[in-house]
Amino acid sequence: MNTVIHNALIIPMSDTLPRYLRGDIRITDGILKQVGGTCTPEAGDKVVDGSLSIALPGLINSHTHLAMSLLRNLADDMDLFTWLQEHIWPREERLTHEDIRRGSYLGLAELIRSGVTTFADMYFYQQETADAVEASGIRAHIGATLMGDREATAQRMPELRELLVSRHNSAGGRIRVDIAPHAVYTCSGHTLTAARDLADEFGTMIHTHISESRQEQEDARREYGTTPVQYLDSLEFFSVPVYAAHGVFLSDRDLEICRSRDVRLVHCPTSNLKLANGTAPVAQFLEHGLAVGLGTDGASSNNNLNMIEEMHIASLIHKAAEEDPKAASAYEILSMATREGARVLGRDGEIGTLDEGKQADLILLDMDAPHLIPLNDPVSAVVYAAQASDVRGVMCAGTWIMEDRKLVTLDEERICAEAEESARRIR
Amino acid sequence: MNTVIHNALIIPMSDTLPRYLRGDIRITDGILKQVGGTCTPEAGDKVVDGSLSIALPGLINSHTHLAMSLLRNLADDMDLFTWLQEHIWPREERLTHEDIRRGSYLGLAELIRSGVTTFADMYFYQQETADAVEASGIRAHIGATLMGDREATAQRMPELRELLVSRHNSAGGRIRVDIAPHAVYTCSGHTLTAARDLADEFGTMIHTHISESRQEQEDARREYGTTPVQYLDSLEFFSVPVYAAHGVFLSDRDLEICRSRDVRLVHCPTSNLKLANGTAPVAQFLEHGLAVGLGTDGASSNNNLNMIEEMHIASLIHKAAEEDPKAASAYEILSMATREGARVLGRDGEIGTLDEGKQADLILLDMDAPHLIPLNDPVSAVVYAAQASDVRGVMCAGTWIMEDRKLVTLDEERICAEAEESARRIR
Repeated sequence: MNTVIHNALIIPMSDTLPRYLRGDIRITDGILKQVGGTCTPEAGDKVVDGSLSIALPGLINSHTHLAMSLLRNLADDMDLFTWLQEHIWPREERLTHEDIRRGSYLGLAELIRSGVTTFADMYFYQQETADAVEASGIRAHIGATLMGDREATAQRMPELRELLVSRHNSAGGRIRVDIAPHAVYTCSGHTLTAARDLADEFGTMIHTHISESRQEQEDARREYGTTPVQYLDSLEFFSVPVYAAHGVFLSDRDLEICRSRDVRLVHCPTSNLKLANGTAPVAQFLEHGLAVGLGTDGASSNNNLNMIEEMHIASLIHKAAEEDPKAASAYEILSMATREGARVLGRDGEIGTLDEGKQADLILLDMDAPHLIPLNDPVSAVVYAAQASDVRGVMCAGTWIMEDRKLVTLDEERICAEAEESARRIR
Repeated sequence: MNTVIHNALIIPMSDTLPRYLRGDIRITDGILKQVGGTCTPEAGDKVVDGSLSIALPGLINSHTHLAMSLLRNLADDMDLFTWLQEHIWPREERLTHEDIRRGSYLGLAELIRSGVTTFADMYFYQQETADAVEASGIRAHIGATLMGDREATAQRMPELRELLVSRHNSAGGRIRVDIAPHAVYTCSGHTLTAARDLADEFGTMIHTHISESRQEQEDARREYGTTPVQYLDSLEFFSVPVYAAHGVFLSDRDLEICRSRDVRLVHCPTSNLKLANGTAPVAQFLEHGLAVGLGTDGASSNNNLNMIEEMHIASLIHKAAEEDPKAASAYEILSMATREGARVLGRDGEIGTLDEGKQADLILLDMDAPHLIPLNDPVSAVVYAAQASDVRGVMCAGTWIMEDRKLVTLDEERICAEAEESARRIR
């Protein structure tokens, strides 16, 4: 169905349009046909009143572990090692395919409710996640995860190839499969190069973690005599497109390698703070011209998947880190969560801005709640004052997947009940 | 009316009760009569189903400038001096009594929606704010503000005395008037001691700002040869009870003075980050045994009054600052927003915990949204995963001021429209 959104306050995040404008948006066959100005609805068009709403590109959550939502609020306020060894890993071992299906649906309900239209995931049993993505109507990069040594990789390879063959570029292009070697500290050199070769073979991208913790830096120094980035570079890992979460501890030389190899970074501020890893040097990422997206990480280290809050937190911590209130402006942060996220995922030709000809991935935020009055600057309002619950409508590829705060494609009550059941079982 | 909340998941924040428990809460004549166990409703009792809700003490926002909500999202991402001189002060000069009334109502709508039952305010034309507080049913410490020199104080004094006489301990004890000399850098020594004497005369407290910025420290060093805290101590300012916002730059000697003089601090993390002042050394505050509350500061430097988000941000930044994921636990942070806030305001005998005999100031949060499933630890859920919009019910002094997300005492539509009108006029 074609849609006209009438008289919205539009934040297009475009190079050619103003910071914000009031006008109509026409969506035809899943594509943005007109952004701004006035549209005359045609017969059969669905007309949505946007007069009390801000319209902006759907948010892009560039790093998460969707099904880890089942482990939410489980083991907080503890050190990384205790958390992983005593709480997370023993429970992950007990997760079944059915649990992953349920955890994926739970995560999707939360993502859509907080205005996300595209996300990049990394976990296991990813056919289940792909099924949920397909049903939900959202757009996703499914990370086909690799960990361990040559043997573990050989065992996983058939499943990964099957995932790539059956899912990459599926669901009308909404689903892509990326190769996700977990990290330098969990993958052997063989596994890392196998991941690279697989990405090359299928013409897809790599999704990994880089330089998240001080411990990771120290371990790499001891084991490889260098930093994770330089070690990966020595493997020619970056000969395929790579996006990497965290990058909290990158040296100047690391940043220079990232620049020259077009490594894209995903900033996950809440997770980095919560696990006491610190604040990634995002100002330096930007000085080096890197594409920088924003991610929530998994619910078990966040504890939510709320990109609206993630933007607020990101903006605040960099002003403090740079001792400059002009740093990390609302517009820069909203860019990370939209157009730069698209660049990170190699999709900036398709999504990330409300430019005519792009996919119609957009969200509507109500702006009539007391905490958004007076609105004054709508970009400030979205980044500094809004809540996830202000998201009223979510459209992906021209289809409404949330309308008037009701999930269109998902049975939320059932999803919540089933997730509770799985969570109880592994508690 | 008496109320029984049936079968809630209760977080009492009490010394004598568990971290959480499931049970009933009976409220009689505005007082908590029973917390936990089972109550048999009596004739005329209002029974509220709490089975899908978390019940906890109403949140205490210990530092805000309520009517500054009119200046929300107005001038972000700029340095303090430009912000104040070019944007905030010129507009504040144009604020009328009617604007303050409207701004106060706007702020109250937001506070109540995000679960606040008590707040401490500092602004001007405070009769207007007191009127709004009285009508709303919320509990407040109204700060009677002083700034400038002897002459300015002499001019303000009749209005302040009138405010104290007419409002202190009014509205059934819900309203207290505190004396609010703005800060060392905006008040002369005479004004600071006059504020102290006025607090002493009326048996009330002082609400001020201390050591918010590096600039303030440098100015005090130049002007008084010492720190703001030590300068105030030399004036015997702390001979009356004082609570002070910020404290980002306190020396060991300052902290020792705060400890020995029982100076209470209000941590305002979002505002400190946004204005690039940094992160207050809250771990040191606690090591010195200081009472530490939590505040949003005004909407113009935040940009919302969302205490749920404030808790999340507070917890995160101290884990990073201490490089310890065990720092600033969810329980410690929730304490700041409840029982410690009550201690800051000298009200810990009355409010801040769900202990029998205390005022019935409590909130209900829905816990059936996807981002709160699975709940696992309810304290973690409130601090790390919840959103302000999860607050379903707010009771102050035994009266519901929000029920099923509907403001009971306030005409929200009118409040929003009038606030927009005032904001337009001063834009």
